[in-house]
Amino acid sequence: MRVALGVSYRGGAYKGWQSQPGGGTVQDALELALSRFADRPVRTLCAGRTDTGVHGLNQVVHFDTDAVREPFSWVRGTNRYLPPDIAVQWCAFPGDAFHARNWARGRRYCYVLLESAVRPAIEQGAAGWIFRPLDGVAMQDAAQRLIGEHDFSSFRSSECQAASPVKVMRRIEVQRRGAYWRFEFDGSAFLHHMVRNVMGCLVAVGSGQRPASWMDEVLAARSRDAAAPTFAPDGLYFVGPYYDAHLGLPEHVAAMDWLP
Amino acid sequence: MRVALGVSYRGGAYKGWQSQPGGGTVQDALELALSRFADRPVRTLCAGRTDTGVHGLNQVVHFDTDAVREPFSWVRGTNRYLPPDIAVQWCAFPGDAFHARNWARGRRYCYVLLESAVRPAIEQGAAGWIFRPLDGVAMQDAAQRLIGEHDFSSFRSSECQAASPVKVMRRIEVQRRGAYWRFEFDGSAFLHHMVRNVMGCLVAVGSGQRPASWMDEVLAARSRDAAAPTFAPDGLYFVGPYYDAHLGLPEHVAAMDWLP
Repeated sequence: MRVALGVSYRGGAYKGWQSQPGGGTVQDALELALSRFADRPVRTLCAGRTDTGVHGLNQVVHFDTDAVREPFSWVRGTNRYLPPDIAVQWCAFPGDAFHARNWARGRRYCYVLLESAVRPAIEQGAAGWIFRPLDGVAMQDAAQRLIGEHDFSSFRSSECQAASPVKVMRRIEVQRRGAYWRFEFDGSAFLHHMVRNVMGCLVAVGSGQRPASWMDEVLAARSRDAAAPTFAPDGLYFVGPYYDAHLGLPEHVAAMDWLP
Repeated sequence: MRVALGVSYRGGAYKGWQSQPGGGTVQDALELALSRFADRPVRTLCAGRTDTGVHGLNQVVHFDTDAVREPFSWVRGTNRYLPPDIAVQWCAFPGDAFHARNWARGRRYCYVLLESAVRPAIEQGAAGWIFRPLDGVAMQDAAQRLIGEHDFSSFRSSECQAASPVKVMRRIEVQRRGAYWRFEFDGSAFLHHMVRNVMGCLVAVGSGQRPASWMDEVLAARSRDAAAPTFAPDGLYFVGPYYDAHLGLPEHVAAMDWLP
């Protein structure tokens, strides 16, 4: 039977999502917990891998197992064996053809950025930080230049394994709540480091180092050298993938209400 | 010269505020950083001590020193020597008679509580958790019964060192944002474990185990045995003290916008 899970995690203590020989990743912790609860080995496949320090709100995975459990048993039983910064949020049985990555119609990311003369403390590891005042109108202007289907090579890390750099950016929104900026990204798929590289450029525009129109030049260059440095992972959240509505998979989890 | 500082910290990694012979407290970390920056020993006195695991948003301390620095130098210079989960937010020189504890006209606390069938993950250590649905109207009703001057002995830990159990509760507000409840407390001063003990009672009412009127009985009993168990420290934030307005000390810091 194919099982789908939604998983929330705080990325600070992990070497990213993807399983490694030495362990220490979110996937390693999740598969260990699932295997203990199912009492047999479980291997998962996720909708979108995250880097070291990046958080997940509704990461979706699927796996095949002959263990038979009720959906909420998978949630509660697996959480018993997970460390406190990872928790399964929901479980569904969307059919044996379901594929967490290939069936995703799009993905959402969110970046939370503290604008303050003083560095973060209580939100340490959970928000990026900029001490310069940012111009929201300029950032929104720059962001809109990325909407549509583009070759995003300028925002792609050299280690990116994607087959093509052409992706569709559907929506970018820049909002502010008190001292925090929130950047929301919605697109077909994202290249390695893409959101963090876009963030570096948006902050360069927002702090007045570059005009909004510079984003057009960066995009057109199709070269990593054209963009700003990769921004810190601390404030980056993989909000989650979304699928055809008829599958009925949850797109909202409690943790999404936590962020400013 | 007497110096006042506002300090934010995440309490999870510390044995509370108050300095201990073995170290490991927020005060120990702050005094070590201040002493390094001032290049001479510094001893601080705070507005309100916090327990293990409790967070501070705008904790206020004062200290005396003959080191002469600009206000923002105290902030930035001290932060260089502080761990990432503690940061000085502001510095002021309110005069040599200022006393962080004795001059406080009141104190504010906030408790953030996740209502979810699944335990916290990304907000682990930063929010309390209840899996039962809560009734906000019943909790607000119960909370109003504590407003005014009362003997709060029923909510006082046996280790409390306060001279008197009589305090003034000025305001309690219960609000909800998505999956999170936020409880705000404003009072003259708070006994040891008082907010956590009140939270235990509010949750007992909110989850339907007790009627709102039970809070009157608990208060009247003046006995710790009458109240519910002490609630977890994870979601508790010492928002900070407030002083006479003419002192001009900041009552708002960026971190206050972080909470739901």
